[in-house]
Amino acid sequence: MKIIVIGANGTIGKSIVNELSSRHEIIKVGKSSGDFQVDITDINSVRALFEKVGKVDAIVSAAGNVHFGPLSDITPEQYGIGLQDKLMGQVNLALVGQHFLNDGGSITLTSGILTRNPIRYGSSASMVNGALEAFAVAAAIELPRGIRINVVSPNVLQESMDAYGPYFRGFEAVPAARVALAFSRSVEGAQTGQVYEVF
Amino acid sequence: MKIIVIGANGTIGKSIVNELSSRHEIIKVGKSSGDFQVDITDINSVRALFEKVGKVDAIVSAAGNVHFGPLSDITPEQYGIGLQDKLMGQVNLALVGQHFLNDGGSITLTSGILTRNPIRYGSSASMVNGALEAFAVAAAIELPRGIRINVVSPNVLQESMDAYGPYFRGFEAVPAARVALAFSRSVEGAQTGQVYEVF
Ligand SMILES: NC(=O)c1ccc[n+]([C@@H]2O[C@H](COP(=O)([O-])OP(=O)(O)OC[C@H]3O[C@@H](n4cnc5c(N)ncnc54)[C@H](OP(=O)(O)O)[C@@H]3O)[C@@H](O)[C@H]2O)c1
Ligand SMILES: NC(=O)c1ccc[n+]([C@@H]2O[C@H](COP(=O)([O-])OP(=O)(O)OC[C@H]3O[C@@H](n4cnc5c(N)ncnc54)[C@H](OP(=O)(O)O)[C@@H]3O)[C@@H](O)[C@H]2O)c1
Repeated sequence: MKIIVIGANGTIGKSIVNELSSRHEIIKVGKSSGDFQVDITDINSVRALFEKVGKVDAIVSAAGNVHFGPLSDITPEQYGIGLQDKLMGQVNLALVGQHFLNDGGSITLTSGILTRNPIRYGSSASMVNGALEAFAVAAAIELPRGIRINVVSPNVLQESMDAYGPYFRGFEAVPAARVALAFSRSVEGAQTGQVYEVF
Repeated sequence: MKIIVIGANGTIGKSIVNELSSRHEIIKVGKSSGDFQVDITDINSVRALFEKVGKVDAIVSAAGNVHFGPLSDITPEQYGIGLQDKLMGQVNLALVGQHFLNDGGSITLTSGILTRNPIRYGSSASMVNGALEAFAVAAAIELPRGIRINVVSPNVLQESMDAYGPYFRGFEAVPAARVALAFSRSVEGAQTGQVYEVF
């Protein structure tokens, strides 16, 4: 398969590339790194990317930022960061990408454990993850030509505990290599409208 | 209790007012109707509303619009309608309202059955409902002073089947009066971080 991985140079992305590259042709994409660059928050940039890359068999996204802050004073603009970036950035990949997928191709996006396992200061991340998961469940029933869409929802990564540890006390951090298996299952399996929780 | 109901003149709102008004003082709010007017999509309008109304014991929202359209050509701007209106409109009520609630007060927002039971053309509604439910689960753990937050997720209403029937074939439409009970349970009960599904 020809697989485009957005966020290929990230903590999760690297591990996805590592899992899939022995069996498939991988196109690595980042904001500033990779074979191609894109800003997923801008649908025109996503269109330009796919026009350069052409048809693919799988679109994998492990990108997206959200703002963390206390509920007592977080602002609509701060929620807007996650809505524009991690949510609509990944949705832009699905909206444009659906027209560049071969029959039976797949889209796999990334949410995260906070959907229903919240942490302090994480209401924006929870919001965005919940939106992504419900979006994929809904999009799955409209995609034509056997095209599939799933979401991988990872726990906090062992590789990220230096940075995120204080916010995730007691969470059973998972290795990136285990998260990568869920992406393989989505891309190389046959299900659609699933949320693969790696908890 | 002193309860502010946003969307009080709507199909669901009327039924909430009917359920709660014999036991509580109700302040009815709408975009153009009611005792007070607000545009929930504008946080400054929400602030102005609460400054006029003052402290309350419960905030109930049954308002919010989304765009319905086929996944094959829906645009980021059309998703933006639901994100600004049904999602951030209701989140604005929570963000401002938390500071105007008496101890032990509650916030109750409205999502809908499409979160995980999708229909054609409903990907924006599903996205927004998923976001609202995950937001409430997360916000619940940060609210101080015993303040609670829940979401009511109604099936399609019997009262709305003339308009929405063709999109909801086979769904067991529920009467608005039954949906109103879930709002009563949220406001007059003691749980927080719940999604009350009325399916
Ligand atoms: N790390 C965790 O513990 C964890 C747990 C659960 C969920 N997640 C989610 O998984 C996703 C990836 O996390 P990560 O920790 O692997 O992130 P990361 O290490 O920061 O990597 C992010 C990657 O995304 C790319 N990127 C960032 N913004 C972009 C944009 N606007 N357009 C295109 N590409 C962009 C970056 O490109 P460049 O390298 O070129 O800058 C980078 O390759 C995020 O959505 C995160 O919320 C992470
Ligand atoms: N009806 C259903 O079958 C159903 C099922 C599941 C979920 N829902 C959800 O439940 C909510 C209410 O639905 P409904 O059918 O009762 O709606 P509705 O009959 O159209 O009533 C909407 C109410 O919200 C107010 N409103 C609209 N936009 C507003 C804004 N920007 N700021 C403040 N108030 C605003 C309106 O005020 P005015 O009267 O002054 O214009 C009206 O009172 C929606 O979020 C909908 O998605 C509905």
